[in-house]
Amino acid sequence: MAASVTPPRGMRDFLPAEKARREHALGVIRGVYAAHGFDEIETPVMEDSSRLHAGLGGDNEKLAFAVMKRALGADDLARAAASGDALSLADLGLRYDLTVPLARFYATHRAALPPVFRSIQIAPVWRAERPQKGRYRQFVQCDIDIIGEAGALAELELLTATVATLDALGLSGCTIRLNDRRILAGILGSWGVPDELRERALITIDKLDKIGTGGVAAELAELGIVTGDADVAAELEALTNADWHLADGVVPPPSWLDGDAYADLLALRAALPDAAIEFDPTLVRGMGYYTGTIFEIAHPDYGYSLGGGGRYDGMIGRFLGQEVPACGFSIGFERIVDLLAVRDEERPRAVVLVYDADVPAARLLELKRELVASGSRVRLERRVKNLRALLDRVTADGFDAFAPVGAETTDAASLAFRELSA
Amino acid sequence: MAASVTPPRGMRDFLPAEKARREHALGVIRGVYAAHGFDEIETPVMEDSSRLHAGLGGDNEKLAFAVMKRALGADDLARAAASGDALSLADLGLRYDLTVPLARFYATHRAALPPVFRSIQIAPVWRAERPQKGRYRQFVQCDIDIIGEAGALAELELLTATVATLDALGLSGCTIRLNDRRILAGILGSWGVPDELRERALITIDKLDKIGTGGVAAELAELGIVTGDADVAAELEALTNADWHLADGVVPPPSWLDGDAYADLLALRAALPDAAIEFDPTLVRGMGYYTGTIFEIAHPDYGYSLGGGGRYDGMIGRFLGQEVPACGFSIGFERIVDLLAVRDEERPRAVVLVYDADVPAARLLELKRELVASGSRVRLERRVKNLRALLDRVTADGFDAFAPVGAETTDAASLAFRELSA
Repeated sequence: MAASVTPPRGMRDFLPAEKARREHALGVIRGVYAAHGFDEIETPVMEDSSRLHAGLGGDNEKLAFAVMKRALGADDLARAAASGDALSLADLGLRYDLTVPLARFYATHRAALPPVFRSIQIAPVWRAERPQKGRYRQFVQCDIDIIGEAGALAELELLTATVATLDALGLSGCTIRLNDRRILAGILGSWGVPDELRERALITIDKLDKIGTGGVAAELAELGIVTGDADVAAELEALTNADWHLADGVVPPPSWLDGDAYADLLALRAALPDAAIEFDPTLVRGMGYYTGTIFEIAHPDYGYSLGGGGRYDGMIGRFLGQEVPACGFSIGFERIVDLLAVRDEERPRAVVLVYDADVPAARLLELKRELVASGSRVRLERRVKNLRALLDRVTADGFDAFAPVGAETTDAASLAFRELSA
Repeated sequence: MAASVTPPRGMRDFLPAEKARREHALGVIRGVYAAHGFDEIETPVMEDSSRLHAGLGGDNEKLAFAVMKRALGADDLARAAASGDALSLADLGLRYDLTVPLARFYATHRAALPPVFRSIQIAPVWRAERPQKGRYRQFVQCDIDIIGEAGALAELELLTATVATLDALGLSGCTIRLNDRRILAGILGSWGVPDELRERALITIDKLDKIGTGGVAAELAELGIVTGDADVAAELEALTNADWHLADGVVPPPSWLDGDAYADLLALRAALPDAAIEFDPTLVRGMGYYTGTIFEIAHPDYGYSLGGGGRYDGMIGRFLGQEVPACGFSIGFERIVDLLAVRDEERPRAVVLVYDADVPAARLLELKRELVASGSRVRLERRVKNLRALLDRVTADGFDAFAPVGAETTDAASLAFRELSA
């Protein structure tokens, strides 16, 4: 029977060691972001279905878990059966990202928030995806957003805070990849891609890492997105080698380059002299709602991005009925947490008292109280025949030392601690 | 439009000040419980419907939010319409407590856990109740449980850790009210209540605070639970004045008293000499799964319990197929968080830089970086005409000082900070 008892498909339990590692990482992230002036907020895990399906979530809307209406009547069921519309039975859904709830939160509470609002959200989201390695149906997102700042200061504060957070997590040496949706538009324009196919074209370009320049060119041709003479594969190859010298007057800037957007990126780079920043005109970042700068953070040791974000000026105001500039960054928490080692000096000393059956409970409590008061973490373990197995287990659980407690033990000072070595 | 944008009914957003207060309280609770040897775990917010509706959740099972199956087919909808069984459309549900998920977690991972497992769970639960003052559809529970310890050491460690946590939260002077389900059984037996009506009788006695001894006696009579000659109201009155001298040999113990259970409670009391502990034979604690000791913690300043728990030996093993002793305590987090003041010395100094529009972004970032590095929390605010309003707002947001930044400001040392007074 026990073997069949598991958490729901695609969802995870966290045992103590893993939970501690996650909480440690969240604590570091919270602390650095707060120091950088961001304020943490929280929204319910559910939103009204109409909000989740308002067209702001892109493809993720299809992956929302739907929560059934309370007290469904026979007529509701009959109507759903007749129309085949199962979603009519749901009035709530679990959020699939933190951006739609943020837009709703901002519309609800704008009057109580500062004109430039810097938010932190660290919370789980749910997507009914096919479970696969590294992809879960419940996972934590870790977003910072700046709402109400139209200027580049928003991008700069986001990037500065994020690099500082990654440094604090021990992930120094990250590289920022920068692009702008306007530059992508210029490239697609130079290939003659009609407006109505541009979103679809970006989905294909976004696969560059996986299918290469040849694969992207082939797919764009197959889908009838690029029909002219452009040698897309060769141009993509050149684009992936673009640098910061495209508009320095030595050679004429390429025809596809949106000069304003490029100038903005150069200014961002100049304002962050200590950061390693690359220009990547092929960087897409999935979501359709980005309108300007987009960025991603990579670490030389890992073949995947540690997070990314961008400017999405059109979106936050959707529930408010007026446009509000916004820019956000999301750390890929589930990836990052696997890279961390929790440093020993950051946790209290953890000790185990191995007690004989005849020690009175009140004595054990008093010993424990004294040790806790002196700053230790304390676990009581009843002595068993196989002491070695017990000590191996508590060592694996991260304890540093143990002491036997017998009927003759009177106070904490008389405990003889022996170190455990991992 | 904005006025109609709200979170889902019965659920709350938390703005920065409230979120900070909650995180502070959770940090204190986590820290003290961890020091006392408890290990934090996490389970997914959803469990399979069959587990949520296995009869372990009592009345709360009816309040579970049901999550619709993915890819519901026409046949599913037709079948549900024909049978009227809406729940057949759900394969998952949101947890309504943390005890059912703990039982499932323990069954899944027992081999990886110590023989006596002390768990912390701090997480939201969901109940589709009619929203009312102080009762929400999403709220945080904060549970500690000891699984695998049949002796009183479990109760003692739970109570000690909980009193220490409340002390650390600034809620000193709490009183523990103790009872045992066996004592309640003895009382019901003395009134001639048949076994099959005892659970129902406890539901009525649990209302004593609200409807008084007369109300309880009347309801027990009305429902046909007590039909004999017992003067229930008078006996309840006597029971609420019970003390620790019922079995000291001066007078014979009352006929309703379960002597073994009372002796166990006396032993608990003796092992906690520093705690204020009352015996309350009318204490019920809602859940039907308790089997032995039950306890509640009250504070003299507040007319409600701050939390409670008890022993529930029959339950944890339900998914495992074998009995495992267990004892748990749940802090009433949503009530407690309202009682707390976050002490100033526990947070970093928070400063605001009020900058003129002509200060370059790179300069602002550098000033911010210096101040963050020196341990401050820093927010940037663009200067506005009404500086007084701006300063009032940032004071309300909890900032301690501000400094103007003009084109002439070159480094953090040249900033002229002025204190803000709340």
